[in-house]
This record gives sequence, structure tokens and C-alpha cells, in this order.
Amino acid sequence: MARNRSTAETSLSYRDAGVDLDASEALHTLASRLLAGRREAYTSSVELAGLELILHVDGVGTKTLVLEKLGRLRVAGWDCVVMNTNDVACDAARPLALVDYIAMPRADEAIFREILEGIREAAAATGAVLLGGETAILPGLAQGVDVVCTILAVREPGWRGNRARPGDVLVGLESSGLHANGYSLARRIIEERLGGYTAEIEGLDLAEELSKPVKDYTGFLLEAWSQGLVIAAAHITGGAFTKMKRILPSGATAVMKMPKPPRIFQVLMEAGNVEPSEAYRVWNMGIGLVVAAPRESVDELLDLAEKHGHKPHVLGLIEQGRDGARILLDTPYGKVAYS
Amino acid sequence: MARNRSTAETSLSYRDAGVDLDASEALHTLASRLLAGRREAYTSSVELAGLELILHVDGVGTKTLVLEKLGRLRVAGWDCVVMNTNDVACDAARPLALVDYIAMPRADEAIFREILEGIREAAAATGAVLLGGETAILPGLAQGVDVVCTILAVREPGWRGNRARPGDVLVGLESSGLHANGYSLARRIIEERLGGYTAEIEGLDLAEELSKPVKDYTGFLLEAWSQGLVIAAAHITGGAFTKMKRILPSGATAVMKMPKPPRIFQVLMEAGNVEPSEAYRVWNMGIGLVVAAPRESVDELLDLAEKHGHKPHVLGLIEQGRDGARILLDTPYGKVAYS
Repeated sequence: MARNRSTAETSLSYRDAGVDLDASEALHTLASRLLAGRREAYTSSVELAGLELILHVDGVGTKTLVLEKLGRLRVAGWDCVVMNTNDVACDAARPLALVDYIAMPRADEAIFREILEGIREAAAATGAVLLGGETAILPGLAQGVDVVCTILAVREPGWRGNRARPGDVLVGLESSGLHANGYSLARRIIEERLGGYTAEIEGLDLAEELSKPVKDYTGFLLEAWSQGLVIAAAHITGGAFTKMKRILPSGATAVMKMPKPPRIFQVLMEAGNVEPSEAYRVWNMGIGLVVAAPRESVDELLDLAEKHGHKPHVLGLIEQGRDGARILLDTPYGKVAYS
Repeated sequence: MARNRSTAETSLSYRDAGVDLDASEALHTLASRLLAGRREAYTSSVELAGLELILHVDGVGTKTLVLEKLGRLRVAGWDCVVMNTNDVACDAARPLALVDYIAMPRADEAIFREILEGIREAAAATGAVLLGGETAILPGLAQGVDVVCTILAVREPGWRGNRARPGDVLVGLESSGLHANGYSLARRIIEERLGGYTAEIEGLDLAEELSKPVKDYTGFLLEAWSQGLVIAAAHITGGAFTKMKRILPSGATAVMKMPKPPRIFQVLMEAGNVEPSEAYRVWNMGIGLVVAAPRESVDELLDLAEKHGHKPHVLGLIEQGRDGARILLDTPYGKVAYS
């Protein structure tokens, strides 16, 4: 009987971990309306002297709580830049400059120094100039360290939008792990059910897994756009594979066969008894970026990904009319559909 | 004897309220070194196609905790834009676009809507296009709502830096109240010594006083720069009058006679038994902006300020060599000096 199931068997969702994705989605829809529909793409732009300038902001969020516990906040600095440059590069925009915003409950120089080193390292890797930032000491408001970056980027010339076409091939690039999403749920599972971050589960070092930096797809994406090898790109972040809706043409479906996810995702799913449909909308499950490519460009695209040190997988196709579902995933745990 | 003084007489400082300005300053100095000295001005820039682009970030901070209690978070949205546009306009940069970052412990649509309305209103007032933003739901990290904006601005042509000269006249423009700084200390005084925000002290409505929006100096500053009426401008924010160091030439001192501050500052100083030197480095004390003007432009500058709806005061002069003190304030509470 359901009432007798032990806690350890209860299925955990993102909502249980305090994050209600539907409520978050409602906020985004509201923002869209208030912004007159400008939230369709990842990024919006303003024109100045014939240039299309993009301003994009994102923060590392709950992952910093874990990184702080593990003494690896340098990764928060890195992530904060790269999650943003990956986003803008999905829309064919080249990172130009950035500012950081760090909120802390008290002024801690060691933590600040560590984060800033990560930011500088990522700025150098992605070609963005660090122009400055703000460090806010907020006792009573911040319980942990919040690390946020805003990127200024300039659109590559000739871009015609981030929208796939029926028939395009979907290629996924491997992630390094969780990247910076789904940590509220991961944290709850690890702290409540796996004995904390120092635990080693079947040879898997949880601290190591949870502090892997976000993979930098920026250079690959900019080169792929400039060579005309991609039609659309989706960065698998908050909302995971549901994020792909943004690149789908009207009435079309992304149909993908998903590879077996890395061990960390298997361990988290099992320990949290997480439903597959929840897992694939909260975590990247081993694929951090999906690009849509014309069929004739796929081989060249795969070569380019490897040249940039990435591991590409041909995952599927954009198809017309699959009963209203917009994303159909054939996973090792069964079929998962998002409408 | 000191040990017998009652709590109500103990002098409260910003440090007592959980904010250590010296520690914050140490972080800024460290950031300066790491950024190769680029923190001298309010803003740094990057050049693109002959344009000088500025990226600037700042958050409303502790004031949002008070505004949330008072149900006036729309003001947090307004402030978050205007505190940034005032900063960039001090460096003669015209606001072009902005993105917001809002962190909340849980998704709250009413709060989000209110903040976004304030942001839109301020964006319209300052001429910046709202390009988008990020709303982060961070249970476990955010205890309250954190409201942050990043502004993209473009430098007005012909600008030669934000540095006053000996002999320049210092003109202050009135603030609307505390603006968005010194709230950690104000909050502690009001909650611990004045009976909370619903209290009315000698006819002063504390809720009303604490929820006044930041004054928008953007239009005035841009017109003053373009007409050559100002040489330097200092926005009196965190660090209050110590912020003026940034606009002083080497070896010079800003000497100013300060007007009697508005009642809210008197009430806070008295209830918190706040030392004058602490008050003038934590709060704006009624003056939200100080500009340095050539002596011959002062009349025209005063007219321009009034045309923009501001109340200007001639406060003093930039002088050479006053025994090492960089800022000398003659206040109704005695002389205050900062070195």
C-alpha cells in the first residue's frame, strides 16, 4: 500500500526539492507577455550603429551551495560565465564583455578570490573581457553565495534565427555531468538518501561528480554557425530537454534516442526514485547541447565537434506531426514525451 | 561608565548591523588588482566599431527586505534600474538596454509582477530597452527577494574622464530619502529601537520614508555632460560621501558645507546614536548626487538641475592640500573628515 512505502522509496521530484518548474514556467510566460513576446529566443538584442548587441544574464544558483560545502567555488566562477556564453553562442552571438554580481551573507575574501579566479579563467577561454562587477554583502537576504554574470555579445552577421526545420538531424554533445542545473533535487537526494557528498557510491566520488564545471560549447558553436553547419542549437539547462521547444518549428516534433546516461544520473535516479519524465526535464542526462543540422552537414559537424574536444552523438530527427508531443525521447528507462 | 550605558544609548554602526564597509572595501581593492586597475571609475568600457560600450551591474540589496515587508516591491524594480543609470550617467554614458536578475526563495507571481512593473517604468523613464532577464528560484540560498539589473550604455562622444580639478565648485542635488543604501543599519535601528515600520515618529511615517524610490538623475547628468557644464560627478551610494574620492585629483580635497539633513536621517542618527562620521559614510544625508562644475558654469548648472525637477545646493569647492584629508564635511553635527 502506498502509505506504507518507506521514505527511501518515495519518488522525489523537483517540486519536492522546493523548485516548482510549472510555477517558474508561469513566471516566464508572464515575463514574455510583459516583454511583448521577446522571450522566444534565448536572447534578445538591441541595434546600435548596424550591430546587433545581446545582453544575457544567468546565475549558477543552487550549485554554489554544494560547491561552497566542497570548497570548490572556483567552479561557480567558471560556470557563471560559460553557462551564459553557451546560451548566447546558441543564438550565434560572440561574447564581447561581461560583469559579475556576487551576493554573500558576509564579506569573505577567500571565497571572493576563488570565484573571481574562475570567472577570469572562463572569460579568457570564451574571449569575453571582464569589465567589472558588484559584490553585495547581504546579511538577512543571502543565506549562501549567489554568483551571477551578465554577458554582452555581438551577433554574427547573416544569422537568420534559431529555428530547426523538419528533416534536420539532431546531434547531441556530451556534458561533463550535471552542469549547473537540477541541483536542488540532486542535493536533496544526496543529503537525505546517500549520506552526503563524502559518500562513495559504487566507486563514484559524489563530491567530484557534483563539482564538475559546465562544458564550454562556445567556440564549437560559433565556428559551426559561421560555417553554416547548424540551423538551430539548444543549450540543455533549466527545464532540460523541454528547452528544445524553443528551436522547434510549428507542429514539429524532436524525436531522439537517448544514450545511456553517465553513472551519476543513474545513481541519482535510483536513490531518489525519480521518474524518467522528471529526470529528463530536470537534468541533462549526459547531453549538454543539442544542435539541429542539415542532413548533408552532419559528418562535417561531427568532425568539428571532435576538433573542439567534444563527444557528439547523432540522436534523431525533427519530424512533422507526432500526435501533439513536441519532444519524444526514447530513453533506457522507456519513452518520455513532452507536449 | 561605558559598561552601564543602556542598549538604547549604544552607538550603532554599519558593522553592528552586519555590514563591514572596511571588509567590503578590501574586496573592491582586491578586485581592482585582479582586474588590473580598471575599477577606478564607476564603469569600465569595451570598444566595438568605434563605440565605447559600458556594462554596469548593481542590485537593490537589503532595501528589498524592507520593501517586501511593506508590500512595495515595485520600488525595488524602479530602484534597480535607476541606481544603475545614475551610475553610468555619472560617467557620461547613455543607457541603451538592460536585463534584470531576480532571485527568490519560491516562485511568487504577484511579487514578480510588481518588481517587473517597476523595472519597466524606470526603463521607460531612462530610455533603456528591457531585453530580458532571469528569475532564479533558490530555496536554501535566497532568504528574501534579490533584485539586480545590468545596464548596457554607450559613452557620449568627446568625454575626457570623470575627474574634478582644484577650483571646481561642488554642487549637490537633493535625494528623495535613503535611496537604496544603508538599509542594514536603518533596518536594525527601526526594528530594534523605533518599534518597527508602522511607527510614526514625531509625525514621520517610517514606512513612507523607507519606501521612497531612488531619484533619477540620468537625464540631468546626460544633458549637463553634453553641454559641458560638469567636469565630474559622484553618485552618493554605498560608502556615501567617501565615494567622492573617485572623482578627486591627486592631493586635492573636497570641502563641503552640508545642509541640515531631512528628518528621517535625524531620527535614525538619534535613535541609533550613530556617530556623524558613520552617518555620512553610510547614508546620503539628503544629497544623492554631487557634481563638480567650472566656476563659470555654476549658474547654468543650477538652472539645468531645476529644469529637470531637482533641488540643487552649492556645497563647496575642490581645494589643494588640506592635511591629507580627502573629504572634509562641515555638518550640523560637527566636522567630519575622510582620508
